[in-house]
Amino acid sequence: MGRVTSLDELPLRDDLRGLTPYGAPQAPLPVALNVNENTHPVPDEVASDILDDIALALRDVNRYPDREFTALREGFAEYLGHGLTADQIWAGNGSNEVLQHIMQAFAGPGRTVFGFAPTYSMYPLIAQGTGASWVAGTRDDDYSLSPDDAAAQVAAADPDVVMVCAPNNPTGTPLGLDVIEAVYEAARGVVIVDEAYFEFAPHEAVSAVTLLHGRPRLAVSRTMSKAFAFAGARVGYVAADPAFIDALRLVRLPYHLSALTQAAALAALRNSDTMLRMVDEIVEQRDRISATLEALGFTPHESWSNFVLFGGVDDPPALWRALYERGVLIRDVGIPGHLRVSAGTEAETSAFLEALASIGSHS
Amino acid sequence: MGRVTSLDELPLRDDLRGLTPYGAPQAPLPVALNVNENTHPVPDEVASDILDDIALALRDVNRYPDREFTALREGFAEYLGHGLTADQIWAGNGSNEVLQHIMQAFAGPGRTVFGFAPTYSMYPLIAQGTGASWVAGTRDDDYSLSPDDAAAQVAAADPDVVMVCAPNNPTGTPLGLDVIEAVYEAARGVVIVDEAYFEFAPHEAVSAVTLLHGRPRLAVSRTMSKAFAFAGARVGYVAADPAFIDALRLVRLPYHLSALTQAAALAALRNSDTMLRMVDEIVEQRDRISATLEALGFTPHESWSNFVLFGGVDDPPALWRALYERGVLIRDVGIPGHLRVSAGTEAETSAFLEALASIGSHS
Repeated sequence: MGRVTSLDELPLRDDLRGLTPYGAPQAPLPVALNVNENTHPVPDEVASDILDDIALALRDVNRYPDREFTALREGFAEYLGHGLTADQIWAGNGSNEVLQHIMQAFAGPGRTVFGFAPTYSMYPLIAQGTGASWVAGTRDDDYSLSPDDAAAQVAAADPDVVMVCAPNNPTGTPLGLDVIEAVYEAARGVVIVDEAYFEFAPHEAVSAVTLLHGRPRLAVSRTMSKAFAFAGARVGYVAADPAFIDALRLVRLPYHLSALTQAAALAALRNSDTMLRMVDEIVEQRDRISATLEALGFTPHESWSNFVLFGGVDDPPALWRALYERGVLIRDVGIPGHLRVSAGTEAETSAFLEALASIGSHS
Repeated sequence: MGRVTSLDELPLRDDLRGLTPYGAPQAPLPVALNVNENTHPVPDEVASDILDDIALALRDVNRYPDREFTALREGFAEYLGHGLTADQIWAGNGSNEVLQHIMQAFAGPGRTVFGFAPTYSMYPLIAQGTGASWVAGTRDDDYSLSPDDAAAQVAAADPDVVMVCAPNNPTGTPLGLDVIEAVYEAARGVVIVDEAYFEFAPHEAVSAVTLLHGRPRLAVSRTMSKAFAFAGARVGYVAADPAFIDALRLVRLPYHLSALTQAAALAALRNSDTMLRMVDEIVEQRDRISATLEALGFTPHESWSNFVLFGGVDDPPALWRALYERGVLIRDVGIPGHLRVSAGTEAETSAFLEALASIGSHS
């Protein structure tokens, strides 16, 4: 035997043929600023507290976890504030899984999911994974959206699910609540506001969770991956009407959140003040990146997130490669003339900016 | 306002309307023998080892986990033996998620998934969740399957995915490798052997992983929930041809396995000798349950798992309720005249058998 089977020989679903797996390169470079992680480790005292809770959870790990993760839902409700209660909360292994649950419930075969491109590249993939079609809308040249334009696009496309990323990934663009209100009014289907990067917005920014009351088709998703420095723990969550949450219970696999994940997330939430202390420092580095990029002749876009998309790059693959060779990993998100960089620690940010300056010109 | 929104008012997928979430009751009873958990806690020395590895993982938990969980795949390959290598292994948050990945890749809208009923109740739900249809085959009166009958049923149904649970849940019935070989020959689609309970089979039993060579459409799934007493950690895995594994990479969400899950599972695998020491004791209790049930006038079915399905129950809901009132939770799996009980510790098993004897008759 010894003959190697190829994927083409297996009875794969037709719509998956020829695809390649999603995922940014995971390269062991000294300065990795490519996937918008929080590059600050979890503080020791918090890690120790998390470990204590995991030790307790391990005592019962032979039993299935609480399928309803009630304590964790209460924790998220308290963290989000604005009078939210646990019956308005759902969670999953990363916000990707939460979005998958939403699309399994409200999209699926024959339905459509709409988003304003360029936006988070997982939306089309998750939509298509449920058998739904992805419909791409547009943005203004600076990636902003006006209420009227957004509403008109949604009314014309009439999708089953609208994805609104606020602030937007990969552009960092802020989005006003007036846009969300207008989109909701124009939509027949559900409207999901993805606030993965919300904690990096100015302190006076108002979350779309304040719009939930009286809007049962609206949901606001968040993640612990970014502000909470918890990408490795895989915890995302969403707030919506209790009936909306009930819909997600119909499609989730039972016991989808492990007892260890529940324990770790709850302990991290209990320490949210300490966990979020890094956010201001990251915002400072982000603004330093934008200012320096501008001084170097690039055109950084306004960002309310922990990353900066910048234009004015003559040859993005060449500049990406030049930085890579200097030990700095950033992201080519496929927008012509642009690259994206995450705000790291002060040292990582300096390494990126110095490498960039050393390359000179816009190569 | 204050009006409560009902799920019916939301734009839910039509095929989900009227459904209720899957899941056995999670009741805080003293003796819970309803979901085939391993009721023995993880030994202290193993829990301590796991905790050490989780502490290490927490240092980098701000970073995304290894998307390919390479070390863990190597660990599963070594545990399964028979010359398997890491490129033949996949894992997920419970074997349910692994089966979901398989059905996303090989079933989906317009396709069919076949299994020999009665069998694991999640198969139809996972299949339908991907948009596929579930086709139920049949078994002999004692729930066994002959190679000829099984192959004829598969040939007639011509499904895209065949699920074979070995030993079968909820009946405990063993299945010969000759049946799997016959089903594979008769099948056009992929054939999944679910060996969730394999470790509870007699020591001389041979795993279907020995059939993988030369059969690229075959996959064998396992779980750490049962023999490894790790239900709370949510770790399932599958062995198959590398091309089959590549198909799962197309449908998984990136970073689906958290760094904490990877660390915990790898540490548990390293301690597999200690973890599996409980298995013989559970098998002893299972056989004691069968013998005692028979003495009490019930008709237990042969079981190679950690549970016993028994017939001869005049009124299953009444007997279930009478046991519940005595603090013992078992499972009514919906088979007329039958109930199912998991083998617990010696004390839990005694509590079940004594409660049953005290109820008298077959109520």
